[in-house]
Amino acid sequence: MDNIVIKKELLKMLGKEKVLTEDLDLMYYSYDSSFLTKLEPSNPYAVVIPRSTEDLQKVMRFAYENNINIIPRGAGTGETGGCIAVKGGIVLDLSNWDEIIEIDASNMQVILRPGVIHAELNKELAKYNLFFPPDPGSSLMCTVGGMVANNASGLRAVKYGCTEQYILGLEVVLPNGDIITTGGIKAKCIKNVSGLNLTKLMIGSEGVLGIVSKIRLRCWPKPKARGIAMAVFDDLDQAPAAVLDIYQAGILPSGIEILDSSAIQAVNQFKPEINLPDAEAILLFEVDGNPPSVEYEGNVIKEVVGKRARNVEWATDPKRMAELWEGRSVTATAAARVRPGASRVFAGEDISVPLAKVADTLRAIRALGDKYGIKVVNYGHIGDGNVHTAPVINPEDPAEIEQVLKLVHDIHLLAIEMEGSTTGEHGVGAVRRQYARLEHGNAVDIMEGIKKVFDDKGIMNPGKLF
Amino acid sequence: MDNIVIKKELLKMLGKEKVLTEDLDLMYYSYDSSFLTKLEPSNPYAVVIPRSTEDLQKVMRFAYENNINIIPRGAGTGETGGCIAVKGGIVLDLSNWDEIIEIDASNMQVILRPGVIHAELNKELAKYNLFFPPDPGSSLMCTVGGMVANNASGLRAVKYGCTEQYILGLEVVLPNGDIITTGGIKAKCIKNVSGLNLTKLMIGSEGVLGIVSKIRLRCWPKPKARGIAMAVFDDLDQAPAAVLDIYQAGILPSGIEILDSSAIQAVNQFKPEINLPDAEAILLFEVDGNPPSVEYEGNVIKEVVGKRARNVEWATDPKRMAELWEGRSVTATAAARVRPGASRVFAGEDISVPLAKVADTLRAIRALGDKYGIKVVNYGHIGDGNVHTAPVINPEDPAEIEQVLKLVHDIHLLAIEMEGSTTGEHGVGAVRRQYARLEHGNAVDIMEGIKKVFDDKGIMNPGKLF
Repeated sequence: MDNIVIKKELLKMLGKEKVLTEDLDLMYYSYDSSFLTKLEPSNPYAVVIPRSTEDLQKVMRFAYENNINIIPRGAGTGETGGCIAVKGGIVLDLSNWDEIIEIDASNMQVILRPGVIHAELNKELAKYNLFFPPDPGSSLMCTVGGMVANNASGLRAVKYGCTEQYILGLEVVLPNGDIITTGGIKAKCIKNVSGLNLTKLMIGSEGVLGIVSKIRLRCWPKPKARGIAMAVFDDLDQAPAAVLDIYQAGILPSGIEILDSSAIQAVNQFKPEINLPDAEAILLFEVDGNPPSVEYEGNVIKEVVGKRARNVEWATDPKRMAELWEGRSVTATAAARVRPGASRVFAGEDISVPLAKVADTLRAIRALGDKYGIKVVNYGHIGDGNVHTAPVINPEDPAEIEQVLKLVHDIHLLAIEMEGSTTGEHGVGAVRRQYARLEHGNAVDIMEGIKKVFDDKGIMNPGKLF
Repeated sequence: MDNIVIKKELLKMLGKEKVLTEDLDLMYYSYDSSFLTKLEPSNPYAVVIPRSTEDLQKVMRFAYENNINIIPRGAGTGETGGCIAVKGGIVLDLSNWDEIIEIDASNMQVILRPGVIHAELNKELAKYNLFFPPDPGSSLMCTVGGMVANNASGLRAVKYGCTEQYILGLEVVLPNGDIITTGGIKAKCIKNVSGLNLTKLMIGSEGVLGIVSKIRLRCWPKPKARGIAMAVFDDLDQAPAAVLDIYQAGILPSGIEILDSSAIQAVNQFKPEINLPDAEAILLFEVDGNPPSVEYEGNVIKEVVGKRARNVEWATDPKRMAELWEGRSVTATAAARVRPGASRVFAGEDISVPLAKVADTLRAIRALGDKYGIKVVNYGHIGDGNVHTAPVINPEDPAEIEQVLKLVHDIHLLAIEMEGSTTGEHGVGAVRRQYARLEHGNAVDIMEGIKKVFDDKGIMNPGKLF
């Protein structure tokens, strides 16, 4: 079907308020936070802004009948091109469909639409002393629907796991417009092992199976206290060793973050007043729980990590905690500032490796940076081996672009070689699908077969995941 | 293919030590712990005891070529007929394939074969200060492979979730003998969002997709301390209300168990020396963590639950904890003793309902028991709404059998009506598949489609799950 006809039909079906067709509007939907879509933005044919399951069904039936691709989008904070119409199609902007349908505190769960912002959800849940533990860096912007699509996690995955751990059920609109409910049509229970686990299959499926139109999510009691320890290391190998020591001591921190020397430099250049100590690595341990538990674990961390670190500072005072955490929280922004006028590239930015191989991995990334003449800033969630790498280049220089693309390819291969994955939490999208066979072998055949069960015409977010 | 030929071929292929063909041997495989298979045991054609992936592949290829059903079996502790050849076929007894291949403490994971016993695994992990948290009642007998097949959980699911939360990857032998590895072919990382989540899809799939031949499992630091509170209630409604109060107070116990008046009676009849107080309900709260945390939470439980309970006793002394827990631990056995010469029936024994509906559900089950003239003993994991019901009958009396089958059907319907599920942790198997459409509606079509992707000939454990 011709693009002009598609636009006309959508406008007729849903009206001007729910359909964008102007180039200027579409351009906003041509990229996300990935480097790929900075290089190759791609306008969709049109954007639909659904406000109900019925809206969604109408668009899906239309797309299905006419073989038009459908690409769901949350807040566009993704770093993989996952929400971009790389092969053309209609983008569904779900970010405005942000109703919290019910907070059922007596059953420890909440039912919501996909467009609810993560931080907003936690603000509402806090009124009931509850919270949704996964804590992505983009909390203030990202949608819970996007978190479901990517199985997002972030700072607290060490203790609290990823989004999947909290999803009890989903309403899903299939490509042909049919609706299924996973986790039980009417169910509001916490535990349920009936049937194949379609809920978990949908989570992290990046929009290639269907559209999540409603989410039933489990909440947890909000812990009363937290504390943060900053440990400074002269020897990179001592950092992961200290993490393991903490586990061995029976402690599961809510977050364990690393800044290696490159990130320390970046932060100090960006904000000299933060004044991080010069070191091979800094670790931040966050623990939460009840007050005496936090105090106890702080003492253990000081003692245990103190044996490997140059020094360890422990804080429970909110002001001091914020200061200790500031270095980590500005790192993503600071990375770009290691070189005046340069930009941080979001590519190869989310590898995951076994804890015992974190130090070797960081050294290998430094060597790759040297090989390609590109500065790389490293930080991330060391507690579960999830390393964020930030190559910094002049984005106007084609030679540097060529070099950085080679670099990130090598970083992805390095992750697999280190018995890790090309992505720990950001997802595959368009940028990492080339590694699917390398990571999963013939299991990809099964994935493709499953996709066909949901999406026989192949219209759901093509060019993504595998 | 004729049964006699199947036996001959298997013996030729794998030898006498790995193949059972005698009726007396096969009879052992004709039932599990379900009431269904007590009523209708079903011998397999033969039993194969594989000792390697190659053994498995040989059997699978043979079965695939000749359209013979394959039924995997762990320890046979299941209560759903899940491991029984209800439609004929070859049973694979995986319980002897019990090698722990690697405990990789520095990456917080263990790689093992499906036949490892749960308690054995935790004994080995304890040497490294690690543990695998799910804690089924059958811990001393059940296999980790069976736990994966059923997504088992048990006492600690409130805080620690179900088996699925800990499985990082699986080796799966498909019906045609091909092997796939989920979670990454070479991966040993903790976090990985690459590709469709086949690991989670396999968990709880009850052997209808393929055979799990290797398990990569995440472990957690073993907590240093625990404590138990016993709270006695004169009013049934106060018990779930007290559970909610505890969550609201920011506490997530590692277990919250209930014995209602029927279970209290059963325990006291079975072992008068336990001498549980006469009450409408008893709750047991178990908390774990570091020592000061456990002490703090004990104080909160005493204070918060004390407002609703007749009295609350708190213990951290191992001897007293064991005494407080004893009532709960003997309940399953005690249930049968409420009536001399009677038996407990494992049917309708695992419903799950929203926490806010637990009291109404227990009352409704009592009323159903009265309606059918059958004594029902109720207990279970109230923290997540998972209620175990134990109808007690004379198993030699056909009239009572007829009545109890009506009763458990009504209990299953009640669970769905209460916005719950027919199974919280035991699984569907042969006994609950009739409720699949009622629970999942048209999502069952997708499940059936997915099954075909794995098992195009429909030979994997037919007559189960949906």
